[in-house]
Amino acid sequence: MPGTVLPVPKSPQPKLHLMAFGADGLIDEIIDSAQQIKEVRSTARFVWLNVVGLGDVSVLRELGTLFGLHQLALEDVTNLTHRPKVEDYGDHLFIVARMIEDGSELSSEQISLFVGTDFVLTFQHGPNRDCLDPVRARLRGKAKITERTADYLAYALLDCVIDHYFPVVEMLGDRLDKVDEILMEGASTEISQELHQLRTELHAVRRLVRPHREVVNQLLRDDNEVIQDTTRVFLRDCYDHTLQLAETIEMFREVCADLRDYHMALVSHRSNEVTKTLTIIATVFIPLSFIAGLYGMNFQQMPELTWRFGYPFTLALMATVAGGLLWWFRRRGWF
Amino acid sequence: MPGTVLPVPKSPQPKLHLMAFGADGLIDEIIDSAQQIKEVRSTARFVWLNVVGLGDVSVLRELGTLFGLHQLALEDVTNLTHRPKVEDYGDHLFIVARMIEDGSELSSEQISLFVGTDFVLTFQHGPNRDCLDPVRARLRGKAKITERTADYLAYALLDCVIDHYFPVVEMLGDRLDKVDEILMEGASTEISQELHQLRTELHAVRRLVRPHREVVNQLLRDDNEVIQDTTRVFLRDCYDHTLQLAETIEMFREVCADLRDYHMALVSHRSNEVTKTLTIIATVFIPLSFIAGLYGMNFQQMPELTWRFGYPFTLALMATVAGGLLWWFRRRGWF
Amino acid sequence: MPGTVLPVPKSPQPKLHLMAFGADGLIDEIIDSAQQIKEVRSTARFVWLNVVGLGDVSVLRELGTLFGLHQLALEDVTNLTHRPKVEDYGDHLFIVARMIEDGSELSSEQISLFVGTDFVLTFQHGPNRDCLDPVRARLRGKAKITERTADYLAYALLDCVIDHYFPVVEMLGDRLDKVDEILMEGASTEISQELHQLRTELHAVRRLVRPHREVVNQLLRDDNEVIQDTTRVFLRDCYDHTLQLAETIEMFREVCADLRDYHMALVSHRSNEVTKTLTIIATVFIPLSFIAGLYGMNFQQMPELTWRFGYPFTLALMATVAGGLLWWFRRRGWF
Amino acid sequence: MPGTVLPVPKSPQPKLHLMAFGADGLIDEIIDSAQQIKEVRSTARFVWLNVVGLGDVSVLRELGTLFGLHQLALEDVTNLTHRPKVEDYGDHLFIVARMIEDGSELSSEQISLFVGTDFVLTFQHGPNRDCLDPVRARLRGKAKITERTADYLAYALLDCVIDHYFPVVEMLGDRLDKVDEILMEGASTEISQELHQLRTELHAVRRLVRPHREVVNQLLRDDNEVIQDTTRVFLRDCYDHTLQLAETIEMFREVCADLRDYHMALVSHRSNEVTKTLTIIATVFIPLSFIAGLYGMNFQQMPELTWRFGYPFTLALMATVAGGLLWWFRRRGWF
Amino acid sequence: MPGTVLPVPKSPQPKLHLMAFGADGLIDEIIDSAQQIKEVRSTARFVWLNVVGLGDVSVLRELGTLFGLHQLALEDVTNLTHRPKVEDYGDHLFIVARMIEDGSELSSEQISLFVGTDFVLTFQHGPNRDCLDPVRARLRGKAKITERTADYLAYALLDCVIDHYFPVVEMLGDRLDKVDEILMEGASTEISQELHQLRTELHAVRRLVRPHREVVNQLLRDDNEVIQDTTRVFLRDCYDHTLQLAETIEMFREVCADLRDYHMALVSHRSNEVTKTLTIIATVFIPLSFIAGLYGMNFQQMPELTWRFGYPFTLALMATVAGGLLWWFRRRGWF
Repeated sequence: MPGTVLPVPKSPQPKLHLMAFGADGLIDEIIDSAQQIKEVRSTARFVWLNVVGLGDVSVLRELGTLFGLHQLALEDVTNLTHRPKVEDYGDHLFIVARMIEDGSELSSEQISLFVGTDFVLTFQHGPNRDCLDPVRARLRGKAKITERTADYLAYALLDCVIDHYFPVVEMLGDRLDKVDEILMEGASTEISQELHQLRTELHAVRRLVRPHREVVNQLLRDDNEVIQDTTRVFLRDCYDHTLQLAETIEMFREVCADLRDYHMALVSHRSNEVTKTLTIIATVFIPLSFIAGLYGMNFQQMPELTWRFGYPFTLALMATVAGGLLWWFRRRGWF
Repeated sequence: MPGTVLPVPKSPQPKLHLMAFGADGLIDEIIDSAQQIKEVRSTARFVWLNVVGLGDVSVLRELGTLFGLHQLALEDVTNLTHRPKVEDYGDHLFIVARMIEDGSELSSEQISLFVGTDFVLTFQHGPNRDCLDPVRARLRGKAKITERTADYLAYALLDCVIDHYFPVVEMLGDRLDKVDEILMEGASTEISQELHQLRTELHAVRRLVRPHREVVNQLLRDDNEVIQDTTRVFLRDCYDHTLQLAETIEMFREVCADLRDYHMALVSHRSNEVTKTLTIIATVFIPLSFIAGLYGMNFQQMPELTWRFGYPFTLALMATVAGGLLWWFRRRGWF
Repeated sequence: MPGTVLPVPKSPQPKLHLMAFGADGLIDEIIDSAQQIKEVRSTARFVWLNVVGLGDVSVLRELGTLFGLHQLALEDVTNLTHRPKVEDYGDHLFIVARMIEDGSELSSEQISLFVGTDFVLTFQHGPNRDCLDPVRARLRGKAKITERTADYLAYALLDCVIDHYFPVVEMLGDRLDKVDEILMEGASTEISQELHQLRTELHAVRRLVRPHREVVNQLLRDDNEVIQDTTRVFLRDCYDHTLQLAETIEMFREVCADLRDYHMALVSHRSNEVTKTLTIIATVFIPLSFIAGLYGMNFQQMPELTWRFGYPFTLALMATVAGGLLWWFRRRGWF
Repeated sequence: MPGTVLPVPKSPQPKLHLMAFGADGLIDEIIDSAQQIKEVRSTARFVWLNVVGLGDVSVLRELGTLFGLHQLALEDVTNLTHRPKVEDYGDHLFIVARMIEDGSELSSEQISLFVGTDFVLTFQHGPNRDCLDPVRARLRGKAKITERTADYLAYALLDCVIDHYFPVVEMLGDRLDKVDEILMEGASTEISQELHQLRTELHAVRRLVRPHREVVNQLLRDDNEVIQDTTRVFLRDCYDHTLQLAETIEMFREVCADLRDYHMALVSHRSNEVTKTLTIIATVFIPLSFIAGLYGMNFQQMPELTWRFGYPFTLALMATVAGGLLWWFRRRGWF
Repeated sequence: MPGTVLPVPKSPQPKLHLMAFGADGLIDEIIDSAQQIKEVRSTARFVWLNVVGLGDVSVLRELGTLFGLHQLALEDVTNLTHRPKVEDYGDHLFIVARMIEDGSELSSEQISLFVGTDFVLTFQHGPNRDCLDPVRARLRGKAKITERTADYLAYALLDCVIDHYFPVVEMLGDRLDKVDEILMEGASTEISQELHQLRTELHAVRRLVRPHREVVNQLLRDDNEVIQDTTRVFLRDCYDHTLQLAETIEMFREVCADLRDYHMALVSHRSNEVTKTLTIIATVFIPLSFIAGLYGMNFQQMPELTWRFGYPFTLALMATVAGGLLWWFRRRGWF
């Protein structure tokens, strides 16, 4: 039923981490209740509330009321299978992004952002894949970011999420290079499987990167009340990163297809070589064996058997046949 | 001949189910004659008439006069092979959608909707594939939907139809995963057929999903008198669902193609392995058999036969030839 | 040289069939001279002159003067290799369409239409492929069409031409289904050729359907003096038909490609099976034959030959080798 | 260095052919100096100067000054590797087209056109591939073209160049048909090479036709001072020709790909048939040969050898084995 | 962290080369400090400062302050993995291009350009791949370029970078031609590898050329304060070059794919030929060997062995079998 916010099964209880920067300097603490934000918000330049754990939706509802968030967006926070997207609800934006984990298996986790003129709310399913520490460090280090506004913080968070894709994509590139090297030395059995694996993972990353590109592009181009022009120049930089990611993945996909074709050609070449060897050896010996079999027959009347030079003549005949065949094969360029 | 409404062969007699919500609360009954709607319509916020069975077109004609429906649209109701589409006839919209059945074989059934400012008419061929019960439940449960207007009801019905595609698509995904697992263990004979089947079914679902996406997009973007702005935000959500469906299907198609390629590579690899084994065994024994045949000849003058160590020498020669060939094959990396 | 109207070789002399509907009811006769139209035109709602046979261009020139047709369009009437197109010459439209013949071989014939506010002229090369009888029947049956205008008649003719493509496309679909059925039972020799044939014919139909779609779309969208808004709603219906045709053909093309791939996979699978069988039988017997050959040698000193249990031992050895190889093949999953 | 006009190596000295039509009728002569045009230009409706030979650039420079041609365009005249293009320099257009030669090998030659309101200048590298005689004939025959303006003449020249592609493309189509016919009778060795050749040539023609289409489209759509509306209707016709060419080439490319696939299928089918035959004959005889070898062994104690019906029994056994195998192959559908 | 300019590891110390043209004629010298530009800038028409070496960023920062360059652009100068792009910062443009090296291995180096109304700054990582000498020569030769403005100089530098791609692309074309020639003589082992290599390099060049095309197009189309209309006509020329490059690469890619297909067809054809030869020789001799084996059996009761013409009859039987098989193969068109 549309418009209903349901808790996420197996998700932990929400933990609220508030960071804000205002007249009193940096506030950086774990809070218990959403209500504590109210006061901070009134004095700070911007507040960033990071909610980890979606096992209980009462906090979400409370925040919805506090910041005037749209019902449909709240519902999307707890549905963790969304593709990245932006939705403009007038005085606030709702952004869904996906953080990638750079482990051995590709997997991603949804992060939902609400961005208003003076607040950023982020929601994550669990604490394991958080990749926002660089932003926290910049805030704590009182870098230039503290002088900026909420939309710049949202950009910084998004940029942080997107930059996490680079090592994952580069790792795929390294694996492709390794496949190329192995192929240079000859076809190997495991290549097919590795290429299939790589292709599947490139699919998966591409499906994650493409909508991020659209998200950043939409933030960059669409008119809305939240993103300011000074932030747009940074978003353009972030957009360049998504473009570069997308392009690299496309290139890797083409490389992958090329390697597969090349591998198939090598396998087929080697298989042909094997067949050719069999043919040459077999076709040379088959007539010889026939001749041998011929004089192995037990007919009483086989004059050749009693000839004095029957045996040497037969050997000479065999040598001639074998030599002739080999000469013919050579002339046809078979070896 | 254009403009003629013909009854659908083998379709049952129409059964009219009226749901309406107005001052008197919910009306939820089977009615006998289209004329009964008139009175209800004058008092209700909206009426929803669901007609099941197209074996008799008099009811359709009557409803056409009653609600001022366009002749061409009425004709399309009884032609059950239409692709999903929207047509704007000023004061009412005509929408064709297709409900999918999640049985073992993919099949779909047309549902035609007329949407005006205060009415929704739906027409189905038979009662078997109706998937609108969730909407009925929401109406009966007096959920928020009863406070909305006819265009919202139309959205709810369309959303219901589209959401029914998800389990079907997921089932195809499960079958693809199973193929992948089987391939990990080695190529199997039935894979080709299963992949062919999956590809055909993905074709079919894709052909159903794509025009639905266009339908929702058209409802979302085009200016018309029926869809209100408050409903558009929900349609955007519904559009996201169609996008997600379309994208999932595209991904499955690529996965399917990848699996086919991978399967072909495995089959070809295995076939090469078999050929290689044949080659190695055959090429090793062919010269040995020739030597054996040579000394099986019955020439009277074969000095080797009378030599004392002729037999052991021959055996040693055979071992040398076999060993030499095996060493050569190994050096070439054949095993 | 552009602008010259030449008679079509081997085309019969033109025969003029006039149909008109006005105050005096339906006029439906073969006329001798183009001049006879003049009078009828002044009183009728619209006139439809169908000219069959382009062996003599004087009639064409006369009609050109009478109705003020453009020189370039007249020239295109006698050039029978045009792709379907619309050209707007202000007070009249020139439409080229192609009628398909539903015989055993795909072929099409050009029909050229001039449409003005009160006239439709159609030109055909010969009488054999005329498919406009349904329209004639509607005119003679005094259906609603007689109350409409010339642009509606042109739509009816075009719709008639396009509807003739459906049985042809469906026949191709039936042939594809048959190929699918045959493949389910196993690969067959003639499949390659049939698929090649089907592909070629799908190419041909697609090349005919696509420009028709553009023609109808152009009539639907472009502003011109001839097509009235009341007719546009019918053209939209006709456009839907061309879309459906185009989509069906695209689907058939994909199905065709899939079937080819599937066929290739089956052929390759069967070929591998054959190879495997050869390998198993050959590799089992090759060592056995070698052993037999070994003890067929005629050396005087072969101790095994005189052993009492030499023969049974040899048989046992052979059984062991054969059994060992079969066990090894089975373990590798070859059968 | 941009902007420098260099003579073309190996190109002959320029020869200037002037055609003009004015008050004094047709002027049609070889002139020695570019200056002679001045006088003619002042009285003629339009002048057409055809310059053949680019070995000396002084004439080009002179004409550049005389007609106010742009420096960059002059430079492009002597660079003979340009793709077809149009450039608008305000009071004159610069058009590059390429004439195709319908010889045995595909090659094309650049023709550069300057078109102003009252002049057309054409530049060619050599006299061998000139294909403009039809236009000259129309001018000399005092056809309607003499009453038109310079832009119409440019259209006529361009149309002439484009129409020359049709026989070349048709010849490729004939060769494809021939390949199809040969394939119907069975796969042949030379097909691969011929298809490769055809594909290469289709590439080449496509690369020539596509930019011509863009050139005509640009002349048709863009606003410029030179092309008049009366000429546009003819350019539309010319554009149709380029479309038809482009479409035919695309079709041929698809046909080519289909034929290659079909050829591969045939080759693979035939190869499988050969393998199957080998398998059947070999696998039938291998066990028989083994049995023969068995009783060719020289053991002293082989009871079967002394049995009275040992030989007939053995023959019967062999017949049974062969029959059994053949029956099994037949049941599996191998022949 | 965005906005931080870091020195490039292993890059040499910056060397500043100043070229300017003003009232005092050409200034062409190596300067020590960025401050020296100030004075020159005030009098010259334009200054071009070429900085080689990014090992120290203080010069970069100083120039940033001097010319008012944007922080993000400065950061991009020292990040050497950027794809070519243009960024408009109001009073100056930032352009990233990549110079290609025409050595044995494809590699490219980033060159960053800042273009203002009276200055061009270029930054390179090292001195080895500088390809701007033609522009320097034109400046020193006091060609027309000295009368132009900074935007024209930027165009000249960009054109110079792009023109350097032509020999690289042509070299790839030569290698493709060589592959084609080799294939005409028959399939060779190294072709697969060479085609794989070529494909990889075409990928790489294409990835470099495409963004350059976008860069030039953006400079051509976008409104900005720096590029003047007189320069645009030259940029159009430069854009044509990028188009030509892109098209040539696309063609080479298609040629590469065609060659691979053709190579595969040749390899498969040759492999089939080898298989066929094996089949013919083997299947002819297998029955003959069986017959020989048959009469090599040692049964005591084999009447044929004692027949007078047993041996000749057997030889005749063998000849008949062999002849029959050969005739059958020939009739099936196998040789």
